[in-house]
Amino acid sequence: MKSIQAINYPVHFQNKAYKEISHLLLKKDYSTIFILVDENTFEHCYPKFISNLVTDKKIEVIEIESGEIHKNIETCISVWNAITELGGDRKSVLITLGGGVITDLGGFVASCFKRGIDFVNIPTTLLSMVDASVGGKTGVDLGVLKNQIGLFANPQMVIVDDTYLETVSKREIKSGMAEIIKYGVTYDSKLFNEIKDNKGLNIKDLIFRSIEIKNEVVLQDPKEKSLRKILNFGHTIGHAIESFYLESEDKENLTHGEAIAIGMVCESYISNKLLNFPKDKLKEIKDVILSIYNKINLLKEDFSKIIELLKHDKKNVNGQVNFVLLNDYENHKLDCKVSEELIVESMEFYNS
Amino acid sequence: MKSIQAINYPVHFQNKAYKEISHLLLKKDYSTIFILVDENTFEHCYPKFISNLVTDKKIEVIEIESGEIHKNIETCISVWNAITELGGDRKSVLITLGGGVITDLGGFVASCFKRGIDFVNIPTTLLSMVDASVGGKTGVDLGVLKNQIGLFANPQMVIVDDTYLETVSKREIKSGMAEIIKYGVTYDSKLFNEIKDNKGLNIKDLIFRSIEIKNEVVLQDPKEKSLRKILNFGHTIGHAIESFYLESEDKENLTHGEAIAIGMVCESYISNKLLNFPKDKLKEIKDVILSIYNKINLLKEDFSKIIELLKHDKKNVNGQVNFVLLNDYENHKLDCKVSEELIVESMEFYNS
Repeated sequence: MKSIQAINYPVHFQNKAYKEISHLLLKKDYSTIFILVDENTFEHCYPKFISNLVTDKKIEVIEIESGEIHKNIETCISVWNAITELGGDRKSVLITLGGGVITDLGGFVASCFKRGIDFVNIPTTLLSMVDASVGGKTGVDLGVLKNQIGLFANPQMVIVDDTYLETVSKREIKSGMAEIIKYGVTYDSKLFNEIKDNKGLNIKDLIFRSIEIKNEVVLQDPKEKSLRKILNFGHTIGHAIESFYLESEDKENLTHGEAIAIGMVCESYISNKLLNFPKDKLKEIKDVILSIYNKINLLKEDFSKIIELLKHDKKNVNGQVNFVLLNDYENHKLDCKVSEELIVESMEFYNS
Repeated sequence: MKSIQAINYPVHFQNKAYKEISHLLLKKDYSTIFILVDENTFEHCYPKFISNLVTDKKIEVIEIESGEIHKNIETCISVWNAITELGGDRKSVLITLGGGVITDLGGFVASCFKRGIDFVNIPTTLLSMVDASVGGKTGVDLGVLKNQIGLFANPQMVIVDDTYLETVSKREIKSGMAEIIKYGVTYDSKLFNEIKDNKGLNIKDLIFRSIEIKNEVVLQDPKEKSLRKILNFGHTIGHAIESFYLESEDKENLTHGEAIAIGMVCESYISNKLLNFPKDKLKEIKDVILSIYNKINLLKEDFSKIIELLKHDKKNVNGQVNFVLLNDYENHKLDCKVSEELIVESMEFYNS
C-alpha cells in the first residue's frame, strides 16, 4: 500500500511502516524513545510493535489508563512527570500507540514538553486511524468539554497497520465507521453508497480512502478557516451529546462514533429544514446509521442540558453556535445559525 | 521611541503603544478581550492601561495570584476554566499585564485554548520587559523545574511602557538588571562597561537596547539551535539555584535575577578554567554583580542538590549538562561539558 504524504509528514501502511520508523529513529539519533500506551494497547499492540522495531536506543514505556475520562490535563501532568523522571530531554521522541485518547493527548504532551519534542502516532483503533492520523490536531478535554485545550502540531510520521484492529471490540470498530460515513456524505457520495449497499467492503480500503479524503481537505485548509469545517458535520450536536453522556452519572457513556452518528442524523434533519437537503437522503442517512448503531433514547428533559453544552463548541463566535450543514451530498454550507427550537426538533426526529 | 519589529510582531513603546493596541483591537474585531493580571498589576497597572485603551468590546479581567510558585499548570487550568465560563471563543484575545509569570503563563494559556487564540503581552517588570518581550517563549514550571512545559508562540504585539516600573520594588528592578548584564557580557561589551561605570544610565535606553539585542539574536536563531543559546549564559547554574531555593522550605526564594547573577559568576569562573576567559574580566563581572546584589551564602551541603537539579536543564541531551561559556566578552562557545567538581569549585568561588 503506498504511503500518503500529509502536510509535513508521511502516513505509512502495514509492514513497510516498521522499516520506515526504524529508519527514522536511526536517522534522528534520538536520546530516548518513549512509548505511550494504555493497559489495553500495552497488552495487545505493544508486543507486535516492539517485535517489528529495529533500534538500539533506550526505550521507556509510559502507561496511562484507557478511556476518554482520562483525556485531561491531569493525565498530561503525570506523563510529563514520568518523562522527566525517566530522563527525557529535547532529543527524546514520543511514540503514541493507541486510540484517539493516546494519540491526541500524546501529541499535546510531546508538543509542550521543553517547548516541543518529536512524536510519532500509531493509531490502533479504526476511529484514530481514519480521524486522528492526519490533520495535526492534538489536545485534551477540559472537564467534560472536548478538546478545549490543544494545539496544531504535526508528528514526524504516522503508522497505520490494520492488524491492530483485531485487538479492539466490535463497538470500537463501529465508532470509527461514523467518521467514514461522514467522509462519504460530505465529500464522497460513492463511498457513502458503498457503505449503504454494504457489498464487499474492505476495511483496508475504507481506511486508505478515509485518510486520503481527510488529507485532501486538510491540505486545502490546515487551520480550519473554511473547507475543513466540513469535517465537523455531525460533531456540533454530536460532541454535546457525547459530553452530556460523559458527565451524566446514571447513563452509560457513548462512544465518539455513537454520539456523532446521532449528531449526523440531527444535522441532516436541520439541513433538510434550512437548506432543503433532500428528504430521501435524510432517510438514507438515518437508515444507515440505525442499521449500524443501537437506537439511543434521548430524553426530553435532557435536551436543554445538551443545548447548554453546545454553547462551548470551539466553532462558536460571540456565543452564537455555528453549524456546518448540507445542501446535498458533497455540498455543504458553513456557519449556519440554527434556533434552539430546531435543535430540539432534530433530536425529536432522531428519537422518532 | 521607534518600534522594534520582532519575528512576526511589533514591540511598541510608551504612549504610541496604546494607539497601536486600540487599533489592533478594532481591526481584528475580537469577540471578547480578556485581561490577565495578578493582584499587584490589577491594583497598580490596570488603571493606567484601561484608561489608555480605546475599545467598545466586552472586557473581562482574570486575576491570578502573583509569584513564581503559581506559574504552573494548575493555574493554567483555572484560567482556562475562567475563560470558558466567561464565554471565551476562538475570536477572543488575551492581554497579559504583568511580570514574567503573567506573560509566560498567559502566552501558553492563549496558545492552547481551543488550539490557539491571539494574545498581546504587556510586561510590567524590568525582567519581563527586557527578557520576555521578544523571543516567543511561553510556558510554565513543572513542580520546581522551570519552564518545562511550554511552546514557541508569538503574540500579536508587545507593549513596553517603562512607567509601569514605578509600581515595582527595587528588588524587582534589580532582578531585571541581571539579564541586561548578560546581554552586555555575551553580546555588547560597551553596554556592560556602561553598567560597570554606572554613569548616566537611562532605564529607557537600557530597555530599548536590551530588546534590540535579544531581537537580533532571536531573529538569527528563533528555535535556539545555536546562537540563541548564548541567552542561557548564567542560566544553567542559575536556574538550578533558583529551583533549589524555590523548593527549599526554610530558605527565602531568590528572584530570577538574583539566581542568574550567581549563575553568571559561576559560569564566568568555569569559562576562565576551561576557555581561558580573562581573569580580570571574571573579577569585573563578580564585582559588578556583588555591587548590585546581596551576597548569598551557598551552603556546601546544598551543592549536590543544586547539581541534581542541573540535570533537568532543557539544554541537556543524553543526561549530559551543556553549558554556554565565554572565551571573552562577546565571544562564546556552545555545548561545553563541565565536570561536577568544577561546578562545585565555581560555587565556592562565588562564596569566596
